[in-house]
Amino acid sequence: MPTKSEKKYYKRKYNRNNHIKKEEPVEAIRIIPLGGLNEIGKNMTVYECRGDMFIVDCGNSFPDSEMFGVDLVIPDFTYVLDNADKIKGIVITHGHEDHIGALPYLMREIHIPVYATKLTKGLIENKLSEHSLKNTVEINVIQPGDRIQMGCMTVVPIHVNHSIPDAVGLAIESPAGVVITTGDFKIDYTPPQGDTTDLSTFARYGSQGVLAFLSDSTNAERRGSSASEKTVGKSFASFFEKAENKRIIIATFASNIYRIQQILDLAVRHNRKVAVSGRSMMNNIAMAFELGYLTAPDNVMIEPEKVKDYDPGQIVLITTGSQGEPLSALARMAGGTHRQFSIGPNDFIIISATPIPGNEKMVTRVVNGLMKSGATVIYESMYDVHVSGHACQEELKLMLNLVKPQYFIPVHGEYKHLKRHAMLAEGAGIPQENIILANTGGVLRIDRNGITVEETVTAGQVLVDGLGVGDVGSVVLRDRRHLSQDGLVVVVFTADSYSGRLLSGPDIVSRGFVYVKESEGLISEARLAAREVIEKYENYDYRDWTVIKSKIRDQVSAVLYKKTKRSPMVLPIVMEV
Amino acid sequence: MPTKSEKKYYKRKYNRNNHIKKEEPVEAIRIIPLGGLNEIGKNMTVYECRGDMFIVDCGNSFPDSEMFGVDLVIPDFTYVLDNADKIKGIVITHGHEDHIGALPYLMREIHIPVYATKLTKGLIENKLSEHSLKNTVEINVIQPGDRIQMGCMTVVPIHVNHSIPDAVGLAIESPAGVVITTGDFKIDYTPPQGDTTDLSTFARYGSQGVLAFLSDSTNAERRGSSASEKTVGKSFASFFEKAENKRIIIATFASNIYRIQQILDLAVRHNRKVAVSGRSMMNNIAMAFELGYLTAPDNVMIEPEKVKDYDPGQIVLITTGSQGEPLSALARMAGGTHRQFSIGPNDFIIISATPIPGNEKMVTRVVNGLMKSGATVIYESMYDVHVSGHACQEELKLMLNLVKPQYFIPVHGEYKHLKRHAMLAEGAGIPQENIILANTGGVLRIDRNGITVEETVTAGQVLVDGLGVGDVGSVVLRDRRHLSQDGLVVVVFTADSYSGRLLSGPDIVSRGFVYVKESEGLISEARLAAREVIEKYENYDYRDWTVIKSKIRDQVSAVLYKKTKRSPMVLPIVMEV
Repeated sequence: MPTKSEKKYYKRKYNRNNHIKKEEPVEAIRIIPLGGLNEIGKNMTVYECRGDMFIVDCGNSFPDSEMFGVDLVIPDFTYVLDNADKIKGIVITHGHEDHIGALPYLMREIHIPVYATKLTKGLIENKLSEHSLKNTVEINVIQPGDRIQMGCMTVVPIHVNHSIPDAVGLAIESPAGVVITTGDFKIDYTPPQGDTTDLSTFARYGSQGVLAFLSDSTNAERRGSSASEKTVGKSFASFFEKAENKRIIIATFASNIYRIQQILDLAVRHNRKVAVSGRSMMNNIAMAFELGYLTAPDNVMIEPEKVKDYDPGQIVLITTGSQGEPLSALARMAGGTHRQFSIGPNDFIIISATPIPGNEKMVTRVVNGLMKSGATVIYESMYDVHVSGHACQEELKLMLNLVKPQYFIPVHGEYKHLKRHAMLAEGAGIPQENIILANTGGVLRIDRNGITVEETVTAGQVLVDGLGVGDVGSVVLRDRRHLSQDGLVVVVFTADSYSGRLLSGPDIVSRGFVYVKESEGLISEARLAAREVIEKYENYDYRDWTVIKSKIRDQVSAVLYKKTKRSPMVLPIVMEV
Repeated sequence: MPTKSEKKYYKRKYNRNNHIKKEEPVEAIRIIPLGGLNEIGKNMTVYECRGDMFIVDCGNSFPDSEMFGVDLVIPDFTYVLDNADKIKGIVITHGHEDHIGALPYLMREIHIPVYATKLTKGLIENKLSEHSLKNTVEINVIQPGDRIQMGCMTVVPIHVNHSIPDAVGLAIESPAGVVITTGDFKIDYTPPQGDTTDLSTFARYGSQGVLAFLSDSTNAERRGSSASEKTVGKSFASFFEKAENKRIIIATFASNIYRIQQILDLAVRHNRKVAVSGRSMMNNIAMAFELGYLTAPDNVMIEPEKVKDYDPGQIVLITTGSQGEPLSALARMAGGTHRQFSIGPNDFIIISATPIPGNEKMVTRVVNGLMKSGATVIYESMYDVHVSGHACQEELKLMLNLVKPQYFIPVHGEYKHLKRHAMLAEGAGIPQENIILANTGGVLRIDRNGITVEETVTAGQVLVDGLGVGDVGSVVLRDRRHLSQDGLVVVVFTADSYSGRLLSGPDIVSRGFVYVKESEGLISEARLAAREVIEKYENYDYRDWTVIKSKIRDQVSAVLYKKTKRSPMVLPIVMEV
């Protein structure tokens, strides 16, 4: 069924055809989201106009609880690789994992120039180094106001506030019109460093006419406005007073350079030395100092091994582990297994983050461990030690009002966030038919007469497990899940390959099922059930081991389920001699 | 080192001995927590005085994410079973799972009378029926003010508000003094049914002198006071207006009878019929009607299969699944797999619960699914559709103030909750040395002169998996965890039992490791590594298969790790012929 705007379009075509012989072509831009829609993470979008293409962002997401053993989830690159010759480059909006984490995997497959702001470039280089790719990739430094040519399109970065410096939104000037994407953003009128989100530039594009607008939906459910990063600095200041002669330990995100600078400033004011713990924190802080994003007087930073030479009241320790990650520095301190630092009543610990959904229990475990050691622990449920980096409802409405787009596409969120953002946009005056809830892989064709989902291209998730990229699929995951629930029972026997006679076994080997020494009766019953099946087929002329194994599986499973109400994976193996 | 109060005690003993020849015995009560401390759930406590014992509550907790395949966690009953002859009975404070869920497992092992209020008895009976134990257990109905004799101790139930009716705290009058436990409680000055928590009785005991006080710490981190259950009713009322001609579907906890009654009242007022979906919801509602805890005019309740005979605007459907449980009625509706109800734009759905930590992602999945079907979905982040059943800081302080105990033991919470509650108590004037952060299994000996941890008894968690109780231990869990992460590689071969000569294999069978068809090279290498080990030992006179299998495991693991950076479980099996 044609939408309203399609109807208008057809009508116009019809009317035009009365006057002119050949229809003027209507320029269109295509937007192909390869991730970031109906999910948190894995942001990646392709823009296409007149056969030219470029990419925005290339992030990873983290495995959900069903993806056993998976380390990382990255976008499916098929569409990009199929169109490799058309791709002019990739622009990165900021240096968070959900925007750069899949870049090393893409850069192995395709050689295209990367465009990123200075700090973002530093973070990408750290990441490429881990993959031994550092010097194989061309990374161009960009800054707000630059004009990056991508074939017929020009990309203009626009400064935005976020929980990491050097974040940008993008204006994409194309023959079809201007498309604006915010990237991740908030509006901080009192940023600890740098300027407020460049509202004027968004407004200027808005006045001139914006075809389509893609905006960050992460906090579309939250009323009001996000708090300024400076409020965290104020809380920290009061805690520095309160800590008195205790050692201060602060866990935060390794990429939140603003927050780290605020900690450095307070340390200087309180004559405390600063040490750093945790690999990613060390790497990021070293890089940020090198690039000038962090500053401190000489002799403020000390090596972790020097901490013991000072009184507790002279130390601030900045560490990873604010999400309770089991292998992080803070978790090891909480568990009493950290090589360098042991926690006691002389520690004043601030966990400066909100648990990401799914991490609450891990954070609680860390808090409990630290408290049991006698430390004072300040964490999210108690005080204002964290603010979000994403715009809330009032900010989103402001942005919609400035950009005044013809078409609106909420991005960066689960369905419930996108839907809520769409409702906000409708409230802000954008007609419902001009708002589209897009899907990963759905090609949006946009011109001044309408927005349509033109086709669907290959897109989705590729699982990374160890060195393997994409070799863990649904069958492997299903097996891991099954094994995790009830374990495994192997039924193995040796048979004569000619007569089918049972030469040895069946033996039962189990793992993760029951504690075998206490379940001998059960195991005997299972063995008996298997033996009955094998012996039944011994005298057959024709022998199909697939059938026999399947029968063994059924019989043994039935016995085990009856006795235990559990369904371990039953794996019959026959060795023919 | 003796504590302050111990010192006082010794001093008094010494002074007394100057006057009287033989010391008067100081009566003591022993409190033995078998669960509920440093954890959420699994509440169970033994009280002992002069050799008489009784139990309060017998709850389960739910497996954490590391307990693969485990259905339920229950307390270790060893201490209770060792003292079976001394136990006079068990008192249940209310009918939530974390207070009654382990009762069927205890009742299989020991025959003691159960004491519970009427609704709690109904819920226990439903649970015992599921375990075919219904008529084997003696359950006595109690009510606030009753005096239950437990040997030398008398237990007096005290009415408290909670998110389920018929909840009680307990005063335990013993020769050593009065001990008070709140059970789970809040203070609701405007309860939808019944009275406010019986503050007068708590105050009366407080005036007369309370030796020790055990109080609910769940919300010790939350400032202010909990909201009244009536506020949920008010929200619901506005949603009933807003829903207009849509079908209303409300998911909530099956035990929150107050909330269900409020829904029934609104349904009557709006001329809607009420249907119920989900087994536990059906059982609870039927039981609550039978016992008079729910009331509605005739013809309001209809069978689920009759829903289709009415217009959407004439229906309210009450369902389970407010925590996003994958097999619940609501989750099946969200996934489009519910046998009876399919969701569409004509549905107005209210999820009346806050996700329990760990369940956020499941709830989000359900919300997304329902929204994608076009339904209006009201959930926790958006509106006041749920209130907590546990007292917040102001209520906890009030209770401490009324009860004025000599000794205080915060219970029912993680360490961080207990610690926070202890800080509140200190602020409320209880001396630090009179507050004890107890542990499961630590026997508290309390008399008027002091509180000490006397000894530690067997206590902890027992895992229930299917029919098995306690047969899944740390080895089985470790194996399940290992299998879940990287899967399994079986190396199987047949050897001559005399010569050790390889007769068949080695074959490699893998599950949950890699997609085998795409990894033939890798599997071949593993097979080769195994063969090399076997052949090396073929000519040995003495043959220890344990050693050979261990070498195979090492070699094969090394090959696989080198190529994939994964460590599947390698399981060598030899069949001797």
